[in-house]
Amino acid sequence: MIFKIEKKLKGSLGRVGVLSTPHGDILTPAFVAVGTKATVKSLNPEQVKDAGTQVVLGNTYHLYLQPGDEIVREAGGIGKFMNWSGPTMTDSGGFQVFSLGAAYGKDISKVTKVTDPSLLIPERFDDSDAPRLAKIGQDGVSFKSHLDGSIHYITPEKSIQIQHNLGADIIFAFDECTSPAEDLRYQEEALERTHRWAERSLVEHKKLNTENKISLFGIVQGGREESLRKKSAEFIKSLDFDGFGIGGSFAKEDMSSAVKWVNEILPEEKPRHLLGIGEPEDLFMGVENGVDLFDCVAPTRLGRNGTIYTKTGKIIIMNTKFRNDFKPIEEDCECYTCKNYSRAYIAHLFHGKEMLAGTLASIHNLYFIVNLVKKIRQSIMDDTFYEYKKEFLLNYKSR
Amino acid sequence: MIFKIEKKLKGSLGRVGVLSTPHGDILTPAFVAVGTKATVKSLNPEQVKDAGTQVVLGNTYHLYLQPGDEIVREAGGIGKFMNWSGPTMTDSGGFQVFSLGAAYGKDISKVTKVTDPSLLIPERFDDSDAPRLAKIGQDGVSFKSHLDGSIHYITPEKSIQIQHNLGADIIFAFDECTSPAEDLRYQEEALERTHRWAERSLVEHKKLNTENKISLFGIVQGGREESLRKKSAEFIKSLDFDGFGIGGSFAKEDMSSAVKWVNEILPEEKPRHLLGIGEPEDLFMGVENGVDLFDCVAPTRLGRNGTIYTKTGKIIIMNTKFRNDFKPIEEDCECYTCKNYSRAYIAHLFHGKEMLAGTLASIHNLYFIVNLVKKIRQSIMDDTFYEYKKEFLLNYKSR
Repeated sequence: MIFKIEKKLKGSLGRVGVLSTPHGDILTPAFVAVGTKATVKSLNPEQVKDAGTQVVLGNTYHLYLQPGDEIVREAGGIGKFMNWSGPTMTDSGGFQVFSLGAAYGKDISKVTKVTDPSLLIPERFDDSDAPRLAKIGQDGVSFKSHLDGSIHYITPEKSIQIQHNLGADIIFAFDECTSPAEDLRYQEEALERTHRWAERSLVEHKKLNTENKISLFGIVQGGREESLRKKSAEFIKSLDFDGFGIGGSFAKEDMSSAVKWVNEILPEEKPRHLLGIGEPEDLFMGVENGVDLFDCVAPTRLGRNGTIYTKTGKIIIMNTKFRNDFKPIEEDCECYTCKNYSRAYIAHLFHGKEMLAGTLASIHNLYFIVNLVKKIRQSIMDDTFYEYKKEFLLNYKSR
Repeated sequence: MIFKIEKKLKGSLGRVGVLSTPHGDILTPAFVAVGTKATVKSLNPEQVKDAGTQVVLGNTYHLYLQPGDEIVREAGGIGKFMNWSGPTMTDSGGFQVFSLGAAYGKDISKVTKVTDPSLLIPERFDDSDAPRLAKIGQDGVSFKSHLDGSIHYITPEKSIQIQHNLGADIIFAFDECTSPAEDLRYQEEALERTHRWAERSLVEHKKLNTENKISLFGIVQGGREESLRKKSAEFIKSLDFDGFGIGGSFAKEDMSSAVKWVNEILPEEKPRHLLGIGEPEDLFMGVENGVDLFDCVAPTRLGRNGTIYTKTGKIIIMNTKFRNDFKPIEEDCECYTCKNYSRAYIAHLFHGKEMLAGTLASIHNLYFIVNLVKKIRQSIMDDTFYEYKKEFLLNYKSR
């Protein structure tokens, strides 16, 4: 894997680059489509590619349980298995541990809905008696399969072994994602674990990577504490990773400072991936603060629910007003959906619970987000980033 | 609409033809893909076309209720609404009246599962107290919407008005489909109604068809009675229809004789559509007995459930043995699914309840059936129909 920086955004950490993988180049900044179970939900690989997607990310936790990493290996790796010929990534399973553990059943995910940080007091989330499907130990994580209740134990070594079986171009070290509601002591403990697991992930990777085809990214954690974030960036930077992930579950207004603290420390010459983040405003923030790669389930998850991105904000296509609206979702959008279908037709498909509904909405949403990052990239090339950002965010009403 | 017969199958009623519509030619015999709610379930129009489909059929009953025929008319007709540029058809709603009425909640449909005709005694299905969503009167049918319980009244005139709003190239007269379990007296009554409704449908159609773009097919009914089938064929033949549908709910072994009785009477120069039928063995039977068009939900319905056609019979892709079977569904199949995906991957998608599962299986199934009819057509052109039929049915185990 080679990463080349083509241009920098003046007065910031932002940059435009090209990340070369064994399955082709990724022009960065880039949005990575999430294909959790080796399929970008409701789309085939041609539709994913036509939306402008350059790289697809599968989830290690899900593929380990179903169909099993051995089957994906036998199929020739995740790309061959799912008929995606471009670059691929897998995450390490660390975030799923968080979802099944500390965050299980709670109103908390990549970006918490609690917008006032003072509300993020531990008590609010303290329900130590609540059921958790994952339990974190010093050596790894034991968890109960959400599919059949079977018990599994994932160590850093095991995560790397699974990911080598899945055979993506870029894989991630096993980490612990913490809740922003955890206290400082727990954040420190968890960070120590993440750092030890990073070292162990790297050792296992070096052992398995005999053909030198797979690149390993280390993950920086540290929650919302400046000292911990910086400590983590320094430590992960000191290890021989090919690139970096920035992990965490964020309160929205914490995100930009955390990303900035980290990217000011990480070496410029290696790529950085902001894990699981991808709303329009976050993309501008991330690029400006030196992020090269983003991934997020939002475009397809929102699409399946009938929530559709437009330049002025998201629309709910099942609203009555769209039933006889024969315009495309966006008049000037060049996606397959907008070139061929009306709002009325898409609304009809959603009302009728037709499978094509989710497909058409996901195509537009994925195109919208992938293309937004491409435009951001172009604006840096054209020295118009700040104007473009201002104009876009002025029109776009997030909610 | 022009229908030209190109070649006849010696010693039978079979023929090869070309049916020219305002939206292109249909090479017959042909299999019509069913797009109930203006979408062939789980597929986009390009996927439908790539499977070899020449013509798509929408359901009047469903489109009348959702999104409403006025909306489809405003959109420019069913073809434009759903982005299908080829020929289109709509049924009359008569079969749905049957599904919601006599057949509602019973083990009875296009082909009843009762294989011994002696079991088709009225008593078996006599549950006059059972709820029905449709009620047949002399002038039309009142029914309760399965969506919101609202009450509607469809007359032959109303069916034709709706179908003109939907704007397909070929539409059907409003008819009453009877259960094979009804007694002779009821069959006679129902047939009288169907004939009166045929005349009324034709009158309404002539009134509305000012641009002469839409063709109307009359429907022959008559259940399993030879005398009634022949009477119906004679009557419907006497009216100025552009082509014919052969309707009914059949016991499997009744079907070929019913089709034969009818097609011996219908004028050779007009096309004939065997409504709602499309299992492989039925396609050979139909073509041999002079059928030009077939439609059936089976390819997509079975596909969504993971039942997949092969030359040796249907397979259930969720069977354990397919989990690590890296061959395509059929080695020599040229469909998109077989060229790009393994049984193991498709099985994985079904186990994971992924939407792409139904899409890939439906593509193969639709290709299989559409292509089977194309091969049957070619075998007539090559004078090898009987050999092809023998060979195919020898290998194919239906169940």
